[in-house]
Amino acid sequence: MTESQTETWLDAVAFNTDGLVPAIAQDKATGRVLMMAWMNRESLALTRQTGKAVYWSRSRGKLWKKGESSGHEQLVDHIQLDCDGDTVVLSVTQQGGIACHTGRESCFFRTLDDNGHWQPTEPVLKDPDSIYQTS
Amino acid sequence: MTESQTETWLDAVAFNTDGLVPAIAQDKATGRVLMMAWMNRESLALTRQTGKAVYWSRSRGKLWKKGESSGHEQLVDHIQLDCDGDTVVLSVTQQGGIACHTGRESCFFRTLDDNGHWQPTEPVLKDPDSIYQTS
Repeated sequence: MTESQTETWLDAVAFNTDGLVPAIAQDKATGRVLMMAWMNRESLALTRQTGKAVYWSRSRGKLWKKGESSGHEQLVDHIQLDCDGDTVVLSVTQQGGIACHTGRESCFFRTLDDNGHWQPTEPVLKDPDSIYQTS
Repeated sequence: MTESQTETWLDAVAFNTDGLVPAIAQDKATGRVLMMAWMNRESLALTRQTGKAVYWSRSRGKLWKKGESSGHEQLVDHIQLDCDGDTVVLSVTQQGGIACHTGRESCFFRTLDDNGHWQPTEPVLKDPDSIYQTS
């Protein structure tokens, strides 16, 4: 697919002044919100083209193929756009059942308790060191 | 609750250079992602304090008590923070079953189809004109 063919739907997306849009990944099966990251036009086009979530890493300043090093890819079932066109939701199948670099299912693993403390409310499913080890 | 009492948990939130953090509202019962909006420190504190979602309207430059004019308030069951501390998820009960100003359940009502078109995939539950009429 060429960029020209994808222009129309990408033009409906209101990227911010940095050329980015927030992308919320939601587990297709469980409905769990797994993570929020950012996409630029190219990463959104690639996400559709490849069927796998590709984000834009703001810290590294480059495309971030989710799961490239961890194997925890996100297979994209469908993409939704909000009323303002400035946020997308990806419905995904999370490979390995782990979206977070801490080894948890979801990055949203801290819950505010009644005493005003963020409590970890989700188990570590896999040691992060073993996720990213290179050998 | 005074600000001093809320400082600790608010200090764990990584507001961006504009003092804002993305807040994702998810329906507690259905798991549906309803909307994404922004919060500043004050709106996040008020959200916890009042138990109702209070956002920061970037376009209007002021606090936005969700549902203040429409009646479609969001009762907050719990608040979660992600691994980087820069995004929150609110688990909410959506009053009226409508989060979107277009009269739909969710703001994410457009789905990208196989031909690269955003298709409305969710019905209008209430005429927007009747939501915001003043009388």
